[in-house]
Amino acid sequence: MRYRRIPNETVRRLPLYLRCLLLLSQNGNKSVSSEGLARIANVNAWQIRKDFSYFGGFGIRGFGYDIGNLTGQIRKILRLDAVHNAVLVGVGNLGSALLAYPGFKTYGFRIVAAFDNDSGKIGKKVGDVKIEDARRIGMLKPKCVTLAIIAVPAAAAQQAVDSLVEAGVKGILNFSPVHITVPKKIKVITIDIATELARLPYYIPSGGKE
Amino acid sequence: MRYRRIPNETVRRLPLYLRCLLLLSQNGNKSVSSEGLARIANVNAWQIRKDFSYFGGFGIRGFGYDIGNLTGQIRKILRLDAVHNAVLVGVGNLGSALLAYPGFKTYGFRIVAAFDNDSGKIGKKVGDVKIEDARRIGMLKPKCVTLAIIAVPAAAAQQAVDSLVEAGVKGILNFSPVHITVPKKIKVITIDIATELARLPYYIPSGGKE
Repeated sequence: MRYRRIPNETVRRLPLYLRCLLLLSQNGNKSVSSEGLARIANVNAWQIRKDFSYFGGFGIRGFGYDIGNLTGQIRKILRLDAVHNAVLVGVGNLGSALLAYPGFKTYGFRIVAAFDNDSGKIGKKVGDVKIEDARRIGMLKPKCVTLAIIAVPAAAAQQAVDSLVEAGVKGILNFSPVHITVPKKIKVITIDIATELARLPYYIPSGGKE
Repeated sequence: MRYRRIPNETVRRLPLYLRCLLLLSQNGNKSVSSEGLARIANVNAWQIRKDFSYFGGFGIRGFGYDIGNLTGQIRKILRLDAVHNAVLVGVGNLGSALLAYPGFKTYGFRIVAAFDNDSGKIGKKVGDVKIEDARRIGMLKPKCVTLAIIAVPAAAAQQAVDSLVEAGVKGILNFSPVHITVPKKIKVITIDIATELARLPYYIPSGGKE
């Protein structure tokens, strides 16, 4: 089944809803109202109803949403109803943290390989994953890896991306706060940690400073 | 000077524009068109013009935006025109990576203290920052710290947040993918790394799978 085009902002919120629904389900809930989901997700209830309206609602007035059904639908829409293999490029502080990060499993992601160009790291293992020479990214092709996470220094980001695209990767989660260029069909999501922190002071009372 | 209320989505993009402007400035540019900025920021030019319209434009038709002026204005709007002290709670893999992360300086953030409840870590230093006992978060008051970053396991997140709020912290960057409760005046921004990755498959051609 194909869904009609959903706004990016809705797509941004769907994984959040999914995480909340999984939590509700773990706690033994079978259904949830948009208001109940709103409280946990920290999103307005009307926003949730609007987001769900893009793919036909799901809710029954007075009964709320069936958590099992909704979870399955969101997984399908986001194409999370299969395991996705991903590789990591850059095993520094952040990269090591990402390799150990337990949250990826929630959505069916599996990091199957890690790359670095530091000969002191190549060959070592972080958890179950062996660190390979970054020059071997091109060898990925037969393994059916479509996703990559890059956590390399800014200066190395574009080259890492080029190798990944060449190897057939279609989606990249980028932790390097730089502008990278990719062919049109490749999707890049950049997480710029400092940029997120930089939004905070706007919301904080300035304590008399005007 | 106070600006009128700016939509959250615009506030989300302002630090990104700021980073791009700093990059342009480093490369010797004095001005930039909305189209030029759009290319680097990966945002539509009309979106940029609309975002800037919330605080009066800044641009001169045909000449583009003066980078120095625009940088200063955005810093002022985001209250980044002063150094902000922040503390980190949770010095695991991710926390250590955050302590070493160079990007915070770009926006004038300084991590002045780190806390953990692991006695094996307390007293050790990561870079310039000594790891202190998490039970000492309450001692923060006199130091004028308004921001905190938490990178603790999900189960420990709420307690860390409660201590921080008690100590006078007003804004929290939260890396724990859990629902945390804070008083209304406290702003929390959650970075859920797995949730970001979970948006990628939606954008990737499914290779014949329907």
